[in-house]
Amino acid sequence: MTLTPLLSPRSIAVIGASDNARRIGGMPVDLLIRAGFEKIYPVNPKNETIQGLKAYRKIEDVPERVDLVILAVSADMVLEQLERSHALGIPAAMVFAAGYAETNEELGIAKQAALTSFATRSGMKIAGPNCMGNANFTDQIFTTFGPSFQPGEPAGNTALLTQSGNMCATVFRMAKRAGVTFSQIINTGNEAAVDFSDYLEHLASDPATQAAVCYIEQLRDGPKFMAAAAKFRAAGKLLTVFKVGVSEKGAAAAASHTAALAGDSAAYDAAFTQAGVARVNELSGLSDLAYLHGFADKIGGSNCAVLSISGAAGAILADALQLSGGDTPTLPQSVQDALDAQIPGHAMVSNPVDLTGNIVNSNEFLSDCINIALSAEAIDVLLLYTPGSFLTGAYEQIKKAAAANHKAVIVIDTYSTADRAELAADGIVYFDDFDRAARAIGAYGKWKKSGMAATTAAAATAVWPALPEARVALSETEGKEALAAFGVPVVRDAIVHTPEEAGEAANLIGYPLVAKLVSPDVAHKTEHGLIRLSLKDEDDVVDAFESMMAKARSMDVHIEGVTLEPMLQGGVEILAGVTRDPVFGWMLTVGMGGVWTELMKDVQHRLLPVDAAGAEEMLRSLKSFKLLDGYRGAPKADVVAAAKAIAALGDAVLAGGERLREVEVNPLLVLPEGKGAVAVDALVLLTEPARAPEEEAA
Amino acid sequence: MTLTPLLSPRSIAVIGASDNARRIGGMPVDLLIRAGFEKIYPVNPKNETIQGLKAYRKIEDVPERVDLVILAVSADMVLEQLERSHALGIPAAMVFAAGYAETNEELGIAKQAALTSFATRSGMKIAGPNCMGNANFTDQIFTTFGPSFQPGEPAGNTALLTQSGNMCATVFRMAKRAGVTFSQIINTGNEAAVDFSDYLEHLASDPATQAAVCYIEQLRDGPKFMAAAAKFRAAGKLLTVFKVGVSEKGAAAAASHTAALAGDSAAYDAAFTQAGVARVNELSGLSDLAYLHGFADKIGGSNCAVLSISGAAGAILADALQLSGGDTPTLPQSVQDALDAQIPGHAMVSNPVDLTGNIVNSNEFLSDCINIALSAEAIDVLLLYTPGSFLTGAYEQIKKAAAANHKAVIVIDTYSTADRAELAADGIVYFDDFDRAARAIGAYGKWKKSGMAATTAAAATAVWPALPEARVALSETEGKEALAAFGVPVVRDAIVHTPEEAGEAANLIGYPLVAKLVSPDVAHKTEHGLIRLSLKDEDDVVDAFESMMAKARSMDVHIEGVTLEPMLQGGVEILAGVTRDPVFGWMLTVGMGGVWTELMKDVQHRLLPVDAAGAEEMLRSLKSFKLLDGYRGAPKADVVAAAKAIAALGDAVLAGGERLREVEVNPLLVLPEGKGAVAVDALVLLTEPARAPEEEAA
Repeated sequence: MTLTPLLSPRSIAVIGASDNARRIGGMPVDLLIRAGFEKIYPVNPKNETIQGLKAYRKIEDVPERVDLVILAVSADMVLEQLERSHALGIPAAMVFAAGYAETNEELGIAKQAALTSFATRSGMKIAGPNCMGNANFTDQIFTTFGPSFQPGEPAGNTALLTQSGNMCATVFRMAKRAGVTFSQIINTGNEAAVDFSDYLEHLASDPATQAAVCYIEQLRDGPKFMAAAAKFRAAGKLLTVFKVGVSEKGAAAAASHTAALAGDSAAYDAAFTQAGVARVNELSGLSDLAYLHGFADKIGGSNCAVLSISGAAGAILADALQLSGGDTPTLPQSVQDALDAQIPGHAMVSNPVDLTGNIVNSNEFLSDCINIALSAEAIDVLLLYTPGSFLTGAYEQIKKAAAANHKAVIVIDTYSTADRAELAADGIVYFDDFDRAARAIGAYGKWKKSGMAATTAAAATAVWPALPEARVALSETEGKEALAAFGVPVVRDAIVHTPEEAGEAANLIGYPLVAKLVSPDVAHKTEHGLIRLSLKDEDDVVDAFESMMAKARSMDVHIEGVTLEPMLQGGVEILAGVTRDPVFGWMLTVGMGGVWTELMKDVQHRLLPVDAAGAEEMLRSLKSFKLLDGYRGAPKADVVAAAKAIAALGDAVLAGGERLREVEVNPLLVLPEGKGAVAVDALVLLTEPARAPEEEAA
Repeated sequence: MTLTPLLSPRSIAVIGASDNARRIGGMPVDLLIRAGFEKIYPVNPKNETIQGLKAYRKIEDVPERVDLVILAVSADMVLEQLERSHALGIPAAMVFAAGYAETNEELGIAKQAALTSFATRSGMKIAGPNCMGNANFTDQIFTTFGPSFQPGEPAGNTALLTQSGNMCATVFRMAKRAGVTFSQIINTGNEAAVDFSDYLEHLASDPATQAAVCYIEQLRDGPKFMAAAAKFRAAGKLLTVFKVGVSEKGAAAAASHTAALAGDSAAYDAAFTQAGVARVNELSGLSDLAYLHGFADKIGGSNCAVLSISGAAGAILADALQLSGGDTPTLPQSVQDALDAQIPGHAMVSNPVDLTGNIVNSNEFLSDCINIALSAEAIDVLLLYTPGSFLTGAYEQIKKAAAANHKAVIVIDTYSTADRAELAADGIVYFDDFDRAARAIGAYGKWKKSGMAATTAAAATAVWPALPEARVALSETEGKEALAAFGVPVVRDAIVHTPEEAGEAANLIGYPLVAKLVSPDVAHKTEHGLIRLSLKDEDDVVDAFESMMAKARSMDVHIEGVTLEPMLQGGVEILAGVTRDPVFGWMLTVGMGGVWTELMKDVQHRLLPVDAAGAEEMLRSLKSFKLLDGYRGAPKADVVAAAKAIAALGDAVLAGGERLREVEVNPLLVLPEGKGAVAVDALVLLTEPARAPEEEAA
């Protein structure tokens, strides 16, 4: 099931090849010829030759079984050509034609479905349709009609993978300006057969690729993406993505021009975080992160020592790093003392460090200061602000210090006077903008230190009750019982009518508990002894039941029974819910409930599975976590128990299968430490049963 | 008191002038000569000539009373030279020397104080010390030792005003790349005499200046800045600032290298918003906003119609605009229909508009689409994504449409193939980056639509009680009474002992009210009729008082009296407090109180004065405002009354004078609509009385 024939073909036929190098059928032939690719077979019934090569009237005439057939023909002709190519044993195809699902019209959607179905049936690896094609710089193979990618560009170890042809060209140009070179360029198009994650999985094991920069509009298969991302993470390869559609209007625009399911933006966030993907929020971040990954060995994180010839620049960088998730840790006193001894006057040495004008005077001053600052263990990298002539003047010292340290020296020159490639050759990292540098360092450092969330679900410990077809929800009691079977602690209550029933129910509910007479006729129950608190065991409960019934009978009122409820004191109410995202599947949401969730959006999301440690991290990441942590003298809440209950909820949902639509525990009452957490209410929504066709028609 | 001699001198003496054009005393002479400035008088006791000009041994030898004397001498010599220049009647001076307050050492601080004191005494306009000087491109006058500013640069109508010499050069270079040209460049240095706001005020009335871009570390006088900013706003001139120190570490770094008070970051935010200042968060934003201001007449706001040759780019721009405070309003159906008639196929026309590949085919297609989209009233400007050859190919159409519309056509070309100046000549706005464009348009549109907050305090309607020296706080009752005098409704209560006292107190408190017997001996007061609710008038209260006393006497319990309290039902608790910022003075803070403020930081700040309309805007800007607005079926709270109470609090504080340190009403209970709002508690903190010197010593 390899994509090698598609991405690294040794021989290529171009059906619809054109003599005109500027046409869609001509460009790949022209590029391949100029790249020195030998086995090109133009197919065109009307020409003897194409761009100087012998042309073949039909694919069957091509004298070898090629690895890849490029279809530069209109959508109407695609399927027939694919079938004929498949009959010849050709394993891969690329379809440039538009007119498929991207039209949002019935005919186009049907055409794309036919393509998908043929790919499944045949096993052929089909790229597109509606794609611009690929460029393999490692092997110098150009299977694209895009003019941006030309033979002779230096190959690098970054792959570019995009869902938009235009953004493919845009990011490529941005990245070139940022000093990034590429192994592969892939534009996925409509992904009727080979999809984004298939390419990603291929790149994860491509030895020429150390980083992938991705432009994503919509993923079609979340779990497949997660699996491919995990391979990247495990191999220490950078996977960085720009995902369009973070705002409602952006999402609507992206959805309307692709033919994919619109997943929840929160689910994408959760997925990227959990899979260790470095997400950037501006296109330029893609190339900046790939560029930094070229210095991967020297950048362990984003704790920066900032050295600057200008106090202003130091302060600006400190701000920008803080806002980007990086930091400027205060240097240890010994390091500050050593810097103080170097720098004349009373300059700032805590971090940022003000080098003052002295940089222009002394020979070893700058390299000494760099070495001293980098000696601090808490420091990952050094940021040096030396604009224009300061950089030129101090260059030899910077070069020396960069060579002497295993931590990166990152130079910032806002005058844009230097060239990244030249500095890179000397092991020096370079930016010309404060904010771009800070954003890139912050995001890269976060990625470098990120782990992978748990990805394996716990083995199911119970089964769900049979879920009748006609139901669209469970009752509260049914829901709680179902979750309880999976280890979610739930509040149970019961109406009992006899001392035996009372004892039995009480043992099930647990102690201490509260007993109340149920009667419409009694107003002040407490005063009449018809509410009894703090019942500690079965004897207590039976005694209370009997005396309450006796009292009630003596009052001659209508008696409906006695309710038993656990006696819950104190505690903080939270909510935990699981919804199904169309792309990523089950997503767990945790928050404080009520106004916190509704007005402040103070919630955390993760994709299932989530273990207890993960659930606890979610709780601790809430802004309102302090409410659980002994806020204003309240006892600390049992966060460990709450996390366990939330993980059990997740496991229960994973075991529940297709009939589940949404499961929510609200509130989950988190009692004081050591006292546990209990689901007070549970909502279990079921999918609508599939209706039979006659019903539909009726 | 004009700064004209300093910023537009007709004659200049340079004390410490050097023959070497690269030295601090040589550079201004060299620049002025090359700029063709005629009346330069180098002063140097050792040379006969300086750079070909006759040199004078001392300032007294200079044959005319110059407008400006530049002191290129060390700090030790500055004061004497200033005194001698002042004696000659020279009105302005510029001090390059360092070694003043920026050293954070006693000696330097004292030197600066002496300079300030001399300036005050003499009335001389003194720039610096520790400044890099200025460049006046309008009049081609260079009074700087910075090599970045050279004669012959084209003059423009933007002024650059910075508190850091290095950032002055950096922003200037960035702005040049962004196509901005300048009227004046001013580096303020330590601001011992002429400060940031003095320059700003001068620029507000400088006819050559239409916009000011500012780099700010710390302001010394907030109210003066606000007044200068108001002049900019009134003149329709853009004032845009980058303020360093938004993070704690950045603020610490900025404070430690300047010699100014560290104001609260929230106070700066409030000040900039209220004064109609366009704040940017990246240095590049300064030049982008100045650039956009060059098209001020054509940019009424940031509601964009986005036209794009790529669905992806449209979605990216929609995202970026949303995140930057701009918008892509859905186009009216008639406009959509008109676009739909132009664009083949079923393209997206709601906004963003997908132009599809048709842009390359038809002659009038693009200009027609631009005209149609701009015809929508809700649209302020048009954003067009046409990278590289698409821009070249469609240029004539774009130019035609730009000329035909009074709304701006903003082109985005991520391939960076065009030149801003060339496009500007054709009336076309140009960016090469999605996010920079969106940030700039969002911020500029916000500025364009921003108003000015109220700046005049209401006349004081009352006076504060005498505040004894020894007190550091008022009691709750004193505080509430003081605020009540200014019209803040407060909750009053009283313990009464006779029917007469009860009636009198009740009339003061207001109705309905609650009466409670105060006795340590009675447990169930309600049951014994010792709590009486909903008392509607004096008769009710007197009756209740008498019957409660009678009942209590019959029970033979110890009676302390009867408390009367207003009966407050429902309502939402908020807080309103006023603190004193060292730079900007009184700052009002409004929030929901409790966890909302503490954990969620859901507060709004404004500088006083704030009128009721402003206070209502603050409340409505809270994320938790919905709690006041009928949340989950609760009645709407009396927001109008709350706003009035908050405004009265602000007026009270303004009338309170220097002894007040902090005043907080917490909670302010906002009752259901029509029922008002009342201060339940009030905290009034006073400044520590100034101690006599002998106490200090003891």
